[in-house]
Amino acid sequence: MTSQFDSRNASAQGTTGATTTASAAISAAVSDTFNASKRRSDAIRADLPVHPEKYTMLTGDRPTGRLHLGHYFGSILNRVAMQNQGVKTYVLIADYQVITDRDTTEHIQDNVYNMVLDYLASGIDPRKTPIFTHSSIPEANQLMLPFLSLVSEAELQRNPTVKAEMEASGHALTGLLLTYPVHQACDILFCKGNIVPVGKDQLPHIELTRTIARRFNERYARVFPEPEGVLSDAIEIPGLDGRKMSKSYGNAISLGASAEETAKLIKKTKTDSERFITFDKDNRPGVSALLTTAALCSGRSEVDIAQEIGNGGSGALKAYVTQCVNSFLEPYRQRRAQIAQQRDYVFDVLHDGNATMRALAQETLEEVCEAMHMVYKR
Amino acid sequence: MTSQFDSRNASAQGTTGATTTASAAISAAVSDTFNASKRRSDAIRADLPVHPEKYTMLTGDRPTGRLHLGHYFGSILNRVAMQNQGVKTYVLIADYQVITDRDTTEHIQDNVYNMVLDYLASGIDPRKTPIFTHSSIPEANQLMLPFLSLVSEAELQRNPTVKAEMEASGHALTGLLLTYPVHQACDILFCKGNIVPVGKDQLPHIELTRTIARRFNERYARVFPEPEGVLSDAIEIPGLDGRKMSKSYGNAISLGASAEETAKLIKKTKTDSERFITFDKDNRPGVSALLTTAALCSGRSEVDIAQEIGNGGSGALKAYVTQCVNSFLEPYRQRRAQIAQQRDYVFDVLHDGNATMRALAQETLEEVCEAMHMVYKR
Repeated sequence: MTSQFDSRNASAQGTTGATTTASAAISAAVSDTFNASKRRSDAIRADLPVHPEKYTMLTGDRPTGRLHLGHYFGSILNRVAMQNQGVKTYVLIADYQVITDRDTTEHIQDNVYNMVLDYLASGIDPRKTPIFTHSSIPEANQLMLPFLSLVSEAELQRNPTVKAEMEASGHALTGLLLTYPVHQACDILFCKGNIVPVGKDQLPHIELTRTIARRFNERYARVFPEPEGVLSDAIEIPGLDGRKMSKSYGNAISLGASAEETAKLIKKTKTDSERFITFDKDNRPGVSALLTTAALCSGRSEVDIAQEIGNGGSGALKAYVTQCVNSFLEPYRQRRAQIAQQRDYVFDVLHDGNATMRALAQETLEEVCEAMHMVYKR
Repeated sequence: MTSQFDSRNASAQGTTGATTTASAAISAAVSDTFNASKRRSDAIRADLPVHPEKYTMLTGDRPTGRLHLGHYFGSILNRVAMQNQGVKTYVLIADYQVITDRDTTEHIQDNVYNMVLDYLASGIDPRKTPIFTHSSIPEANQLMLPFLSLVSEAELQRNPTVKAEMEASGHALTGLLLTYPVHQACDILFCKGNIVPVGKDQLPHIELTRTIARRFNERYARVFPEPEGVLSDAIEIPGLDGRKMSKSYGNAISLGASAEETAKLIKKTKTDSERFITFDKDNRPGVSALLTTAALCSGRSEVDIAQEIGNGGSGALKAYVTQCVNSFLEPYRQRRAQIAQQRDYVFDVLHDGNATMRALAQETLEEVCEAMHMVYKR
């Protein structure tokens, strides 16, 4: 399970080791682009609390599995904060993105249901913030056609994140993986999103969305904003083994897991043979990941916790981590269980979110057709 | 103006000159594929008059200009015949295909209006045969997403017709040109077309549509037919200068042109300095194109006409061609003028066609979502 915008993959942008002048020049250009994006992102983050009403944020996830603590601390907390600050927020469940790099939509209904449940339990308020699946918005998906005409095949091929994802997936590059940054542009632009919280590796996609918006506006008529990626400085919470938290690694604490499941998962994580607990990410990834997990859930620092556990060893550490995570998730689990009792309500939220977003998409598509003179009336 | 399916471009399939074993093998494979397609096409053509009710035909044109005699003899006549034979026929005005290889939708409204008018004047009966623009069918366009996931980037790149069109256009390969065979698959499959009249150069696209249908059916559930390309043996009517008939060459007799405009166009065509008229396509392209035009419009043979004109030279030839074309088009022009008086009716035809096709697309998209488990309900 990877987050749709925040990060679908380990960073691919800014890979170094360039030895030729050409690749050095490319690196410099990439770095310039990054610096420019970073500056704009910083300016927006400073302005957001002052003028929240100026912003429309699109954010979302791929329903390839269950949301976990990594999503919670990495993005969902921030979405809820933005929503509550008064930023117009749309939450996309990017169901078509499930098939960019896999051949099956297995468990998708269950994943989508649980995703809505997790959003609601996290504090996404459906009266303010529509939650929607993009497969339910044909008028948004239709934008693929005009948008694909605005980018060259070379631009699609040049995207470093797409390449890295293709390699990571071990799957042939599908037409959908090649073009999914264009589909992201459809998602962002149909609802006229002007900010998108992103990880660094997603900046090339935002650049492409900006390019598409600019070219459409120049070629036909001004319809779209040029959205900005807002870089987060949230700490990336590692999986329990120190690798990226991912369901497929079995190192992720799902938001929907019970206290017992969570205890069991933490218990079986691998640490190391050294008894005395210290925080050392590079040399002790397992121990350090446990410390970070406890730190995030308790609000304490890793070093502080390590000192307290000291000679207690990994047994004591795991017990403490379990306690921190379960205490932290306890009220969450209660809310989640309560909402889950109203299964119909969860589907109603999605249904209403889809209806709201579809109305928006219909309006935008009408503007697009008008701008392109594709209106055939008396 | 090129026909959407019958031919968008001069043949690109089956280019020869292979010198290496690898390309010889590829040529052999291409030729095998062609022979297999040809055999299936022949079988369908034999079966069509016997079991017209088994077939659903999608056909159409890109609204990049006005329909001309080349379209009439090359495809429209055949569509009307199929419709009247009882084959379920859908006529697509492929408006998004206008921007595969150009940056503008200039005159598109006028082109679409005139295209509907030409279809009606040609005998397309809107009570039997819906005429529609694909930009009006979001649910069909949405199929781009699942379909793009079913083809690899390598398969998209390998299409010889796309490459040839890109080169012919002198335009960079856009994302839309690269993926338009997938969009054609959406057009054909949303209405469950099982036959598509095609030129040889369009066979790779039909192959891709078959692949997409097969993969979807295997991966999810049986939803789509595997359509066949039906090769036409209609003579390709040359432009007045002997080149391919194309509005951009100024060598095309538009169906909507007046008798005077037609006479003027024929008058200014270049022939050659030899007075005695003979039919010799290779050495006398201009004279021969005029003979073919007269032959098609009069039902006589080129050689017969050439013998009759003989020493009369190109002046007499042009006078005869003008007479043949104008006599042939006279009843057509009358019908066209009559229909043009009811401008509202023309738009109503398109509106009703779009509504009919959209209902079909909604049904198909529902089946697709169901097959992919993308249905999120209580």
